[in-house]
Amino acid sequence: MTNGWSWSYDRYERDRERLVEALCTLGNGRFATRGSAPECTADATHYPGTYLAGGYDRRASVVDGRRVENEDLVNLPNWTLLRYRCRPDGGPPGDWLTPDSEDLRHCDVRLDLRGGVLTRHLLYLDDHGRGLRVSHLRIVHMGDAGLAAQCTVFRAYGWSGAVEVASVLDGAVVNAGVERYRHLEGRHLTDHRAGFGRDGVAWLTCRTADPGLGLALAVRTVTRPAGPAHEAATRTGTVQTYRLPVGPRRSVTVVKTLALRTTTDRPAGDPRQAACGEAADAPPFSRLVSTHRAAWRRLWQQGELHVPGEAGRVLRLHLFHLLQTLSPHTAELDVGVPARGLHGEAYRGHVFWDELFVLPYLSLHFPEVARSVLGYRHRRLPAACEAARRAGAAGAMYPWQSASSGREETPELHLNPRSGHWLPDHSRLQRHVGSAVAYNVWRYAETTGDRGFLHSAGAEMLLGIARYWAGAAAFDPSLRRYRIPGVVGPDEYHDAYPDATSPGIDDNAYTNATAAWVIARGLDLLGELPDVRRAELREGLLLDDAELDRWEDVSRRLFVPFHQGVVSQFQGYGDLAELDWEAYRARYGDIRRLDRILEAEGDTANRYQASKQADTLMLGYLFGAEELYGLFARLGYRLDDETWRATVSYYLRRTCHGSTLSSLVHGWVLARQKGPDAWRYCEEALLADVADVQGGTTGEGVHLGAMAGTIDLVERGITGLEAGPEGLKVAPVALRELPRFAFTLCAGGHRGVRVRVLPGRLGVRVPASPQGPLTVVLPGERRLAVAPGEERRFRL
Amino acid sequence: MTNGWSWSYDRYERDRERLVEALCTLGNGRFATRGSAPECTADATHYPGTYLAGGYDRRASVVDGRRVENEDLVNLPNWTLLRYRCRPDGGPPGDWLTPDSEDLRHCDVRLDLRGGVLTRHLLYLDDHGRGLRVSHLRIVHMGDAGLAAQCTVFRAYGWSGAVEVASVLDGAVVNAGVERYRHLEGRHLTDHRAGFGRDGVAWLTCRTADPGLGLALAVRTVTRPAGPAHEAATRTGTVQTYRLPVGPRRSVTVVKTLALRTTTDRPAGDPRQAACGEAADAPPFSRLVSTHRAAWRRLWQQGELHVPGEAGRVLRLHLFHLLQTLSPHTAELDVGVPARGLHGEAYRGHVFWDELFVLPYLSLHFPEVARSVLGYRHRRLPAACEAARRAGAAGAMYPWQSASSGREETPELHLNPRSGHWLPDHSRLQRHVGSAVAYNVWRYAETTGDRGFLHSAGAEMLLGIARYWAGAAAFDPSLRRYRIPGVVGPDEYHDAYPDATSPGIDDNAYTNATAAWVIARGLDLLGELPDVRRAELREGLLLDDAELDRWEDVSRRLFVPFHQGVVSQFQGYGDLAELDWEAYRARYGDIRRLDRILEAEGDTANRYQASKQADTLMLGYLFGAEELYGLFARLGYRLDDETWRATVSYYLRRTCHGSTLSSLVHGWVLARQKGPDAWRYCEEALLADVADVQGGTTGEGVHLGAMAGTIDLVERGITGLEAGPEGLKVAPVALRELPRFAFTLCAGGHRGVRVRVLPGRLGVRVPASPQGPLTVVLPGERRLAVAPGEERRFRL
Repeated sequence: MTNGWSWSYDRYERDRERLVEALCTLGNGRFATRGSAPECTADATHYPGTYLAGGYDRRASVVDGRRVENEDLVNLPNWTLLRYRCRPDGGPPGDWLTPDSEDLRHCDVRLDLRGGVLTRHLLYLDDHGRGLRVSHLRIVHMGDAGLAAQCTVFRAYGWSGAVEVASVLDGAVVNAGVERYRHLEGRHLTDHRAGFGRDGVAWLTCRTADPGLGLALAVRTVTRPAGPAHEAATRTGTVQTYRLPVGPRRSVTVVKTLALRTTTDRPAGDPRQAACGEAADAPPFSRLVSTHRAAWRRLWQQGELHVPGEAGRVLRLHLFHLLQTLSPHTAELDVGVPARGLHGEAYRGHVFWDELFVLPYLSLHFPEVARSVLGYRHRRLPAACEAARRAGAAGAMYPWQSASSGREETPELHLNPRSGHWLPDHSRLQRHVGSAVAYNVWRYAETTGDRGFLHSAGAEMLLGIARYWAGAAAFDPSLRRYRIPGVVGPDEYHDAYPDATSPGIDDNAYTNATAAWVIARGLDLLGELPDVRRAELREGLLLDDAELDRWEDVSRRLFVPFHQGVVSQFQGYGDLAELDWEAYRARYGDIRRLDRILEAEGDTANRYQASKQADTLMLGYLFGAEELYGLFARLGYRLDDETWRATVSYYLRRTCHGSTLSSLVHGWVLARQKGPDAWRYCEEALLADVADVQGGTTGEGVHLGAMAGTIDLVERGITGLEAGPEGLKVAPVALRELPRFAFTLCAGGHRGVRVRVLPGRLGVRVPASPQGPLTVVLPGERRLAVAPGEERRFRL
Repeated sequence: MTNGWSWSYDRYERDRERLVEALCTLGNGRFATRGSAPECTADATHYPGTYLAGGYDRRASVVDGRRVENEDLVNLPNWTLLRYRCRPDGGPPGDWLTPDSEDLRHCDVRLDLRGGVLTRHLLYLDDHGRGLRVSHLRIVHMGDAGLAAQCTVFRAYGWSGAVEVASVLDGAVVNAGVERYRHLEGRHLTDHRAGFGRDGVAWLTCRTADPGLGLALAVRTVTRPAGPAHEAATRTGTVQTYRLPVGPRRSVTVVKTLALRTTTDRPAGDPRQAACGEAADAPPFSRLVSTHRAAWRRLWQQGELHVPGEAGRVLRLHLFHLLQTLSPHTAELDVGVPARGLHGEAYRGHVFWDELFVLPYLSLHFPEVARSVLGYRHRRLPAACEAARRAGAAGAMYPWQSASSGREETPELHLNPRSGHWLPDHSRLQRHVGSAVAYNVWRYAETTGDRGFLHSAGAEMLLGIARYWAGAAAFDPSLRRYRIPGVVGPDEYHDAYPDATSPGIDDNAYTNATAAWVIARGLDLLGELPDVRRAELREGLLLDDAELDRWEDVSRRLFVPFHQGVVSQFQGYGDLAELDWEAYRARYGDIRRLDRILEAEGDTANRYQASKQADTLMLGYLFGAEELYGLFARLGYRLDDETWRATVSYYLRRTCHGSTLSSLVHGWVLARQKGPDAWRYCEEALLADVADVQGGTTGEGVHLGAMAGTIDLVERGITGLEAGPEGLKVAPVALRELPRFAFTLCAGGHRGVRVRVLPGRLGVRVPASPQGPLTVVLPGERRLAVAPGEERRFRL
């Protein structure tokens, strides 16, 4: 009985294994290990997949005759590897067994979400009727962020003799998890040293090439029955080999316990010494599992989410993976939100704008983690200012893709696997990423009431980004408005006008409207700051009255294009050709990557009114109707229900969902309209990874923004929930498909507030505390108070 | 007109210079530079004194035939050094000038507290009537924690020619700031590399021996008039030499700007590259000074404290130095509270229990910094548990002295400079340091309402320390009570019984009473935790019901000795001999270091009822009467006003204030008794550093606990103030000497609450905000509300 808390895969298929690996990844917010079979060998085409949060490395390669640099999420040495073979009494040793062996009869994998435990069972049976059952349990410890462990049990059927087991710690790994990146340099580890310490601990140290991060892994191997190990250190790792007696009533257990340390750990110290000590002193496997489970129980309570049925199971999987990438441990680290979690090498582990979909959830449930993710951006504010300066711009220009250094890491070339062409990549012109950072700063402070952050690091970011936008806007006397030229919006299919010689489109509605919003918030913030802090910031930024006058002006006169009574995705979008959607769907089936299809045909998506993903409609994700219409009114445009509905309907028909975020955003837009269709898009968003709707991309890493976003869509979107220090505002959409659900969040200074949505009713429970009551605001501005220790039900 | 905001020293005396250096140290919470004259040479006996917060290094030495290890606060390369000499037209060059030159006619140093700017003016006049005036300004930037700068202006009087200036970056530094440590290895920097980059930037990289922290310093030197530099890199540094024309109407300006980076910085990257870029791109000196001043203005507002007269000026100096050691930048770092600030090498920069005196202030004014200091202890919880394990004890045994690793760093031997003897140092038996950590956790959470911290990292520390105490207590059937043997209390003069063969005394009242308090708070905390968190902690700690029963029992039956109707400092204290105080004062004058005097006489302080500092009376610092009597009542002892007053009076007569904390604690005890004498002790505590009452110790580093403690004594002690999420409780002592004062703090979720104490009245102002009103509780349980944006005055 899985009870909605487990995922299982009951056969081994080489082709599908990448997907299973990504979805069965285990992590604790500090590092994650893909769910690969422990007996897979570490060769250049297979990679073990242990990733350290924030652990990036820069290498140079030559692609298509050009020198390019890539900064990759580093693939750490393989600590899971365990080779084994049978040595029947009196017979020759068998082959080393792997899931690819012809003798494999049965294989199943089960992921227990509640406890964060991955289990594999394999059964081998050879032609002589000799069976070997291999049962494997693995955890990456959620309580102690430097530890992981796996326990493997061998049972013999129909024979006796010995199992020969090689416990390997292998540093000869490369980044090879994404086929189309194999042209690039994938070796990131250098200066390997390996050896053995006390208590059967093998260690391996190495460092990355740039910035020279030092790594130490120590693995303690314990067998039952205890066996003498033959120990050998190689140039890049260690092997401990055991020959352990096995028989029908005599099983063999091999436990590997990993301790991981780096030179950036706190307290500072020698990583090898620390890792070896921790591995040697780590508790036995059973204790590790029980304390690990206890830590997960706490997380599941803080992030409690009860949604019935399959949707609930998928949402739980999403939360599981979110918390493996960003856990409470993350609050101590310098890490951002990698687009694909710590689950694979797609996008090289880079940070994009995905925290726009992740921060709302974190702010409501794990505010310290949310703050630390904003701190990650703040520590890279100098890099963003430097990028602006080099581009001749003002303020802070955050990069579309970034990694450790905070510099722009968007590749300059990308490969269309369909055509084999290397194409210039202009996606770095997505300057809207800065607005996402500013939006997150503002919303985090609104939700948590953390003015301390808003007035310190938050203000520095928000003002830097506002200044960038005010500077990027150029006044057009003919329009008597400011315009922002040469950008790319969230829809990456449009990176230039047809037949244009230079990249970028002008006046992307999403970019301009959010830029105006950011500048207006910058002005609001300056108004609310304590005098000395305002003076300090203005002094530091040399922000004079004339510049603030310009901010005011730009925030009221940025141009937003319209056509046919709808908001135009960008200036001239309405003039583009209409795509023959039916014809393309008929010809290609899946047209999510329409850009690649058209390029391979010698055409370009730039010619068509066809969007990869929500672009203009992103405004309906970020803003409720009132705020959105107010923003347009401030800009001197009339946006009302009618125009907005027409806009929504216009773009819904012209989007091919080439991003997992697309259906999520559409779900939000419809939920904000209280539309019954909202659930359809949410369900589609729920499928993104579990059904790998993009045909292989999940195997390269989960889609973290969409995962977190779906939970947030249920918790905030469908309930119309807004939490702040003043209380909790709720206005649920009545959904036939989801009449009842419940979740827990932080609101009004209370932790663990439980919200229950029921047909026509709403329950709110506030845990006992010495604090004052929580104010709940229901539709029609009905304000009600729930005292700590009470549960109240309200009729909607 | 200094207006209480500056300190000045108007003559140069070599002997007094160490004191001036320490009191004129500039820092920003990340690093600090002592206020040494820039032209002092860096030889083995003089040291430049730039210290990095948390930057420690371990070296081995042989002392008295024994190998000992010392972990020192590292002395960074000297970036301030500037050598200069005159080259009159047609004459030979003069000598290199230093303040020791016979030509020095005038010297003054001025420290501007408001702006954090140090100014030195020197006037040299040679036998030929040729004058050189050197004006020097220095800052360590409070806004950008990686920067510092100094500007030196040379003016010639009565001659013209050139000034030859050598701008030096010198890595050949040693720790030599404390005379009595010079037996120990003081070289901490290795692997020096030096060179020159763009824009006149000189750089120097090196690393510490253990743990191998990598350091990079980059210094940009700019002269006016611009002069070509002769650049030379040496093995351990760089020299840039300029020959700049000078004359009566032609001054010379030399600006050095430092950028400092280490391998532990976030984001991770190459320190040299980062430092060189920052030094090259740093704004000009005038901009740096104005943004630095603006940052200080903000700090002075957050920590506003208006106390009239000289006391106010000293308190401001104390706050100035506190904020140079622990600033908002500290919240991003892994640093604790070094006993002597970042101001010198005394105690090797180690962390003791001083945060007990610093945390209350930080919690009320800079809660993020307070939390980070607790986080520093939490990151060293594994080391404290390991120390307990090795000692055969349970739980967490925090070390008396610690540094980066969190291990015990108390020296095993110390030198009595009076006798020349090396003596065993048993001060590590001060196990009460753990109670200080637990106390800080609890009070921080009470003051700030940060339950998130209390329930996560805070709970782990508190329970670990409670467990240590429950295990350390041994049941004595004859007393039918638990006893804690073999410790040293805060009074370090008593580290053994007279003629005992083993160190430590038994049942130190302070140790036992605080241990009982810690265990009781551990039980309280377990009661208030959410169920899953309680279960997780109990699972992780294997904390069963039987053990909790023991906690309960120990917390109610720990032994506290009494004699002659007063609490005994420890079991048997009353049996010790009485010291002939008058005779010793007559013979030695200053008997603060009575221990050294007695040891040199062949006697020992262990024989006498004579305390170095407040020990039992520390209970009156930590607890108000109600809480203290309640604690004793829980232990089955009757403590009332009469007994406590007798106890206070008993120990006041038997304490020689060998610690700067002693008069501070006595001030607190009397303030809690609403005694008019409180101010006398407070005034004495105010003198500790500015008058260097310990005769030379301030020059080795300020006394940070006493500095912060005096501010806290005024703000909390004299006002009887308790702040918490529920509001602000105030009950001032009417002091003739201090009838009016005002300060600003955080309370009830409001930042910037201003409290004004006036004769018979109290004013409270709450800044405008969307939050609810602040509750103020006055004597007699009068509860009143102050709305945001309002100021109210109350009659007391």
